[in-house]
Amino acid sequence: MYQFEQFNPEEFLTSYWQKKPVLLKGLFKNFIDPLSADELAGLAQETEIESRVVQRQDNGWHVEHGPFEQFEQFGDTDWSLLVQAVDHWHMQSAQLLEPFRFIPNWRIDDLMISFSVPGGGVGAHVDQYDVFIIQGMGKRHWKVGDKQPLESKLPHPDLLQVAGFNPCIDAVLEPGDVLYIPPGCPHEGYAIEPALNYSVGFRAPNQQDLLSSFADFALQEECFKQRYQDPQLQLSQFAGDVTTAEADKLVELVKLSLKQPQQVNKWLGGYLTQAKHDLDLQLPEPSFEVDDIVEINQQVSTWLRTGGLRILTIQGQLFINGEWVDSQGCSDEFIRLLADKLDYPTAELTEQFKLPANLELFSALVNEGYIYPYEEDEE
Amino acid sequence: MYQFEQFNPEEFLTSYWQKKPVLLKGLFKNFIDPLSADELAGLAQETEIESRVVQRQDNGWHVEHGPFEQFEQFGDTDWSLLVQAVDHWHMQSAQLLEPFRFIPNWRIDDLMISFSVPGGGVGAHVDQYDVFIIQGMGKRHWKVGDKQPLESKLPHPDLLQVAGFNPCIDAVLEPGDVLYIPPGCPHEGYAIEPALNYSVGFRAPNQQDLLSSFADFALQEECFKQRYQDPQLQLSQFAGDVTTAEADKLVELVKLSLKQPQQVNKWLGGYLTQAKHDLDLQLPEPSFEVDDIVEINQQVSTWLRTGGLRILTIQGQLFINGEWVDSQGCSDEFIRLLADKLDYPTAELTEQFKLPANLELFSALVNEGYIYPYEEDEE
Ligand SMILES: O=C(O)CCC(=O)C(=O)O
Ligand SMILES: O=C(O)CCC(=O)C(=O)O
Ligand SMILES: [Co+2]
Ligand SMILES: [Co+2]
Repeated sequence: MYQFEQFNPEEFLTSYWQKKPVLLKGLFKNFIDPLSADELAGLAQETEIESRVVQRQDNGWHVEHGPFEQFEQFGDTDWSLLVQAVDHWHMQSAQLLEPFRFIPNWRIDDLMISFSVPGGGVGAHVDQYDVFIIQGMGKRHWKVGDKQPLESKLPHPDLLQVAGFNPCIDAVLEPGDVLYIPPGCPHEGYAIEPALNYSVGFRAPNQQDLLSSFADFALQEECFKQRYQDPQLQLSQFAGDVTTAEADKLVELVKLSLKQPQQVNKWLGGYLTQAKHDLDLQLPEPSFEVDDIVEINQQVSTWLRTGGLRILTIQGQLFINGEWVDSQGCSDEFIRLLADKLDYPTAELTEQFKLPANLELFSALVNEGYIYPYEEDEE
Repeated sequence: MYQFEQFNPEEFLTSYWQKKPVLLKGLFKNFIDPLSADELAGLAQETEIESRVVQRQDNGWHVEHGPFEQFEQFGDTDWSLLVQAVDHWHMQSAQLLEPFRFIPNWRIDDLMISFSVPGGGVGAHVDQYDVFIIQGMGKRHWKVGDKQPLESKLPHPDLLQVAGFNPCIDAVLEPGDVLYIPPGCPHEGYAIEPALNYSVGFRAPNQQDLLSSFADFALQEECFKQRYQDPQLQLSQFAGDVTTAEADKLVELVKLSLKQPQQVNKWLGGYLTQAKHDLDLQLPEPSFEVDDIVEINQQVSTWLRTGGLRILTIQGQLFINGEWVDSQGCSDEFIRLLADKLDYPTAELTEQFKLPANLELFSALVNEGYIYPYEEDEE
């Protein structure tokens, strides 16, 4: 379990969140890496896992996409291996997200882990999303700037690098130190010794994302079929003109679809629980009966949510992995447990299973591979 | 030139448009078909032209899609050939749309022409769009009902047939008669003798159509990039909840994109001028110089807009065939001419060409194949 040392989340939200970069020195005390560089390299061998190596070269930058069988070819200096969404695949790493859940779950995206050899880094760049960068093993020299006018520089199209910036933070990070960087703030880090860094990344949809997803929802759900009507049409002087009143009426039709709260919530719930990377679903084979679930619940100490799986509520409605889930008859307490926790202790479940609807929903989720039993001393 | 006989468009709009079906007996006097059944069959041989044969059989309905080489296989009775968007391909047929332009151009879709042998028809059905059905050669027995509860019947998935309905119009149509049918009103027609029917169809986007197109516009134009922000975020009790305030803020972002009139007009102008069927563009080879245009304008009597090409204005901005067209420097009169007419008399153009910007835009449109010179006695 990872826990912050002397951290005031309220103060952080007021002073820094989405406003100012900050170095949270020693946020984790006696930090222990959840995995080793070798284990990270092992994950980068898998085809389902997104990884890349970024290498600084004399004449620019080189980016190579995984899977990777070996790393000798990259030499001893000036490269980083970056692995995306490690929380989907490695339970101990996923634990690193937990202390950051004072920020709503729907804003949290995933955990990216990088391993850098001395001199390794991705160059000065800006991101569009908030990020906490945790220093694991090793030391890395980071510079972070406030929002400022920047010149973009594209030695490699994947890197979104900027030409240079005025840093307000310039520090060598040691294990357990954490940087918070708001969207749009330039940053760069170079390893001084072989280093692991953990990036807790956030999501924040833009208008384009929302529009595409809302339009897809309308098609999938076959809703929003109200058609333009003009029974009051009057003769016009200009056959080839679309009048302002007509244009307004067309726009009004779109706005009307945004005013149907039930549909809009269903859309948002689906959208905000969609996974951007593959999930490592824990499908039981064969699937469990309700009685099996009760029995297992007496044998293990806890159940875990599959890494990266998104469970959210909107106005009491439950959404899991992109879908609305019927939770009629379930207790509010049980729904909150499902959505708010990623770890479901058996004692609490025994209590909740007294209501058959709770047990049935839980069984269905286990059979979908969304939740799986976990024995503490398994690994 | 097709002209209505004793028709009061104002009265029609007030009493019938989008409200009630009506039979406009003898709307065209001495109606002459713009093409023959053989010419229609010829168009149905072309791969670019969408056509189908609908055939009534003992055990149901048979639909076959063109192109068609011959029609003997369908026998002497009980089938219709339907050809879409004939106005895109056959200038004389396109003329049939002209008298209907008392309804704004952007609402007019295209001209579908059917040829039916005795007993031929597509069965009782409803459409989602307004339509005027003109009786050409031959006689056809039509029944049309007011909006009413209907049972859908799907002997063939393409036909959207209904089980039966209560007609308020029950009449044998003769050449020059016209039926107006609002969306949602059931209708069916069977030929008594070999018959040609001309359907002037309308467009009316629904919310789904508008949403998809608006989302596509955002992607294409790379606009609407404002991202969700929550610098005022406060600690919440429930990590897995999306609060109503958060959901509202996400929806507000979408609404905001609908409040940018310049972008919204650009979207609508592009959307409403998109052709749904291929255009028969009249590309000049090699392309003309401005001087050639002036010279041609002295030689021919008129220029024509390519059949089915859509030209519209929204708040003075010009849109052609899905694109915004820069018309800076052109006269308002010239823009109105382009958008409101489909036939550009040379005398009027000579006047307009005194402004060089008008001449330049006109030349560009001729070189796009959108407008072509036409000599009255050519055919
Ligand atoms: O770990 C790295 O090298 C990159 C970290 C970073 O820039 C980020 O997470 O935004
Ligand atoms: O001409 C036909 O047979 C079909 C006409 C029709 O139903 C329509 O245009 O809506
Ligand atoms: Co970054
Ligand atoms: Co119809």
